[in-house]
Amino acid sequence: MRKFVFVLCFIFAHFITFHTTIAQKRIPRNFAEYGFFLNKQQLYLQELLEFLRIPSISASSEHLKDVQGAAEWLKNRMLGAGISNAQIFQVGKYPLVYASIPAAIPQAPTVLIYGHFDVQPASVEDGWNITKPFKPRVIQDKIYARGASDDKGSLLSVVHAVEAILAVSQGRSPVHIKLLFEGQEEIGSPDLPSWLLKNRKLVQSDLLISADGSMHSETIGSIVWGLRGAGAIQVNVTGPSHDLHSGGFGGVVENPIHCLVKLLQSMRYENGSIAVEGFYEGTRTVTQKEKEFTRQSIDFERELSRLAGVSQLVGGESKLFDVIERLWFRPTLDVVGIWGGYMDQGIKTVLPARAHAKLSFRLVQEQIPEKVVEKMIRHVNEHCPVGCACEAFDLGFHALPFESDPDMLSNQVLRETLLDIYQEEPKYVRSGASIPIVGFIQKEFQMPAIFLAFGLPDENIHGPNEFYRIGSMDKARKAYVSFLYQLGERYQLERSSKKPTQSQVVATTTPTEDIEMDHSEL
Amino acid sequence: MRKFVFVLCFIFAHFITFHTTIAQKRIPRNFAEYGFFLNKQQLYLQELLEFLRIPSISASSEHLKDVQGAAEWLKNRMLGAGISNAQIFQVGKYPLVYASIPAAIPQAPTVLIYGHFDVQPASVEDGWNITKPFKPRVIQDKIYARGASDDKGSLLSVVHAVEAILAVSQGRSPVHIKLLFEGQEEIGSPDLPSWLLKNRKLVQSDLLISADGSMHSETIGSIVWGLRGAGAIQVNVTGPSHDLHSGGFGGVVENPIHCLVKLLQSMRYENGSIAVEGFYEGTRTVTQKEKEFTRQSIDFERELSRLAGVSQLVGGESKLFDVIERLWFRPTLDVVGIWGGYMDQGIKTVLPARAHAKLSFRLVQEQIPEKVVEKMIRHVNEHCPVGCACEAFDLGFHALPFESDPDMLSNQVLRETLLDIYQEEPKYVRSGASIPIVGFIQKEFQMPAIFLAFGLPDENIHGPNEFYRIGSMDKARKAYVSFLYQLGERYQLERSSKKPTQSQVVATTTPTEDIEMDHSEL
Repeated sequence: MRKFVFVLCFIFAHFITFHTTIAQKRIPRNFAEYGFFLNKQQLYLQELLEFLRIPSISASSEHLKDVQGAAEWLKNRMLGAGISNAQIFQVGKYPLVYASIPAAIPQAPTVLIYGHFDVQPASVEDGWNITKPFKPRVIQDKIYARGASDDKGSLLSVVHAVEAILAVSQGRSPVHIKLLFEGQEEIGSPDLPSWLLKNRKLVQSDLLISADGSMHSETIGSIVWGLRGAGAIQVNVTGPSHDLHSGGFGGVVENPIHCLVKLLQSMRYENGSIAVEGFYEGTRTVTQKEKEFTRQSIDFERELSRLAGVSQLVGGESKLFDVIERLWFRPTLDVVGIWGGYMDQGIKTVLPARAHAKLSFRLVQEQIPEKVVEKMIRHVNEHCPVGCACEAFDLGFHALPFESDPDMLSNQVLRETLLDIYQEEPKYVRSGASIPIVGFIQKEFQMPAIFLAFGLPDENIHGPNEFYRIGSMDKARKAYVSFLYQLGERYQLERSSKKPTQSQVVATTTPTEDIEMDHSEL
Repeated sequence: MRKFVFVLCFIFAHFITFHTTIAQKRIPRNFAEYGFFLNKQQLYLQELLEFLRIPSISASSEHLKDVQGAAEWLKNRMLGAGISNAQIFQVGKYPLVYASIPAAIPQAPTVLIYGHFDVQPASVEDGWNITKPFKPRVIQDKIYARGASDDKGSLLSVVHAVEAILAVSQGRSPVHIKLLFEGQEEIGSPDLPSWLLKNRKLVQSDLLISADGSMHSETIGSIVWGLRGAGAIQVNVTGPSHDLHSGGFGGVVENPIHCLVKLLQSMRYENGSIAVEGFYEGTRTVTQKEKEFTRQSIDFERELSRLAGVSQLVGGESKLFDVIERLWFRPTLDVVGIWGGYMDQGIKTVLPARAHAKLSFRLVQEQIPEKVVEKMIRHVNEHCPVGCACEAFDLGFHALPFESDPDMLSNQVLRETLLDIYQEEPKYVRSGASIPIVGFIQKEFQMPAIFLAFGLPDENIHGPNEFYRIGSMDKARKAYVSFLYQLGERYQLERSSKKPTQSQVVATTTPTEDIEMDHSEL
């Protein structure tokens, strides 16, 4: 899970109440595969520790061999699980592990399960004081190591679940399963989108399940039904050809920091809304149904303030929209970095040659990152103050907004699954953050997506002392078994009623019938 | 000469034409002391090389002993020159070398000659490729070493000139001379102002002569009749208590970079003038006389543009004032540095906790740095955008504006002197930059000031391969002899006419009669 991903996504879920009245306690289904899991806890744990010992840091070229090593390890483990066509694809410089498992019934739906085995950089100097990043250490229920929570823990449980299904059903999977585990997520998956487009048949499915993400808490699951999209540009403003003395030229030569300040200020109206022409194209008013799903307790704002360490939530369009609407349904434009001139101790009276800013924006609904980037660049060019030269360029970080119908069949099945696992009603949440690959697959392949990942918000992903809970491994493998069986079952029910519904798992533009599973490809 | 000092001061002088018609070529006066100088060129050069070998870097605590060593060397050289009361004062951690030489006639005016023997830091790694910074090397007319031009070269010539006067006149100096050479100029003379105030009698004179500065070119001298003052503050803007994820909080929590941009924009009107309340207090319209002295050739703007590498000179109040008025007679407010958030490669979608800016301003006429700092801080406090906390603090860099009457007696004498030396009419120039100590002494001691220093703009002061011209040494010692004799002479003439004039060297509030030279103090 990348830094810009939904670390904070589920924190707020606590305050969202699901509107449907349901029975609170119920008898969970007990799948035969749960028996297969018995007495394997130690084995699974040892496997995860082995997996975690591989320093598969995608950001470091010297660790490229370890990313490759993690792919090999994973492929072998998948082959060992009976996933006979597991294989490694080279995607740019990075490996991708892919496999497909046919369903017992050809007409069964196809799910694409996504995860990543590369990890963020980590060194003892960052503050790892419980263990070294790649020397996993288990203390009570916690496994400390880089990548434990993000994302090797959840990913490995997917393999365990599939192994159990194949073993118990003797190869008769309830759904067609495609497994796609990448090795470049932590550097923004630069080569993945074009690979996905070139390998449409391997990708196209009825549902994307992301094993990258997190749950609400140890005792409550969550259903993510929206993420914001994102994009980013850099703005460079140039003044004189070299740094000047602010005495010798101040007041005579335009200061590029002044130009930058003026330019940035031109992007925002006094009420906080964005003044960049066309910025809001593709946005719409929140629907009644969406509002129902975002009903919140009165503590939502207080909790958010507490987390941010601020006394007021007044950012962005606070004069126009309430907090939850701003966070989940409104786009933003943030200056995430600014620099120019002298930034050290004391004073140096320089009139700098250059000033810079990095701007990121969050997108919603039908906004498209590339188009917003274009509009931003046009604004920079058209509003460059006299006396300076301005340029803006795309920083290549594009994420389409992700939205799903919280009521669609796969989310209904997900709710059932989480209710089984946690014995508590899951939280329906959106996040203000972005997971680029999910939005991309949803749009390019017209596939709905759900999140089934068991990291928790307190597990220090991307930081020192990252950890994962042993208990989450058990929940994860059971959840995958449960979800896949229930999905197959519900899908059969839907088919047999022969009445396509709004809440059908299949995206309307890509009927299942069109999907050919050609396993000879692999 | 500090970094913020007038490195670029004289570059523009080239384009200023003096309005008085004078005879172009003339027979220079030939003082008896010039004979004393004969055949001493090699000796003087060797002395300077010895002086330059002492790495008297005031910014480095490990070189404090060398600053002390340079003071000792200088004091001994002064004693050797017949300046019998030369002594070292401790000013904070740094030495100051002081001496006084009485005039033959008690009623003669008193001049305070200022210079500094500390130097800027320098190391081979900075790009010294002609010699090591403290291994002086002579190539043709040039002496390469740190401090050669700034300011050991000019300073040593003052000692040579005084030595010659004392030797030739047998101790009968034409004027009372006070020599004040400091060792902390390159770090901003932190302890000097309070020392000067505590030692008023040692300082108080009729005229300050700065041996720190530079001339227009090898063939044309310059008369500096104005410098801008200066001040600086830092602005810190705080938002959330720690860096946040721009997805998880963007649009909900106010971004301190946005607050800073808005705050900085609030300081400037659309026409470029400063919107900080009271900022312009103490400024006035340029007088007819000042305008006469700033008559410029048509090339002024073109040359300035060329030096800055810009196509238009549109900074500051360009909609209200022309270039020369903006540079020499108008105050400015420049953001000299700005920073916050993510400033590295690519993108990190952070909503930063803090944003910062450093602002410096140039002051003119009766503006007072401390008061402008106060007004700036008040503006920051009163205009802090909702959702952020703002604080501003004084960066402790204060320089009073310096102004002199270009026609005052000492400048008339200076013109005669420079005409003698260069056989060319000197240029009358001001600078947009600041020399704090000159403005301070002028104001606190009500003393007029002139500049008599022979560095040249191309001598890489503060940079690698700093050098000084051997020819400048000769010009400097002759100029000091000539100036001091002519000043004494003119002063006598003025006195004998008993008609105090506007152009009198003595500041009106401090009649010469009040100045007691008590040499027993030393």
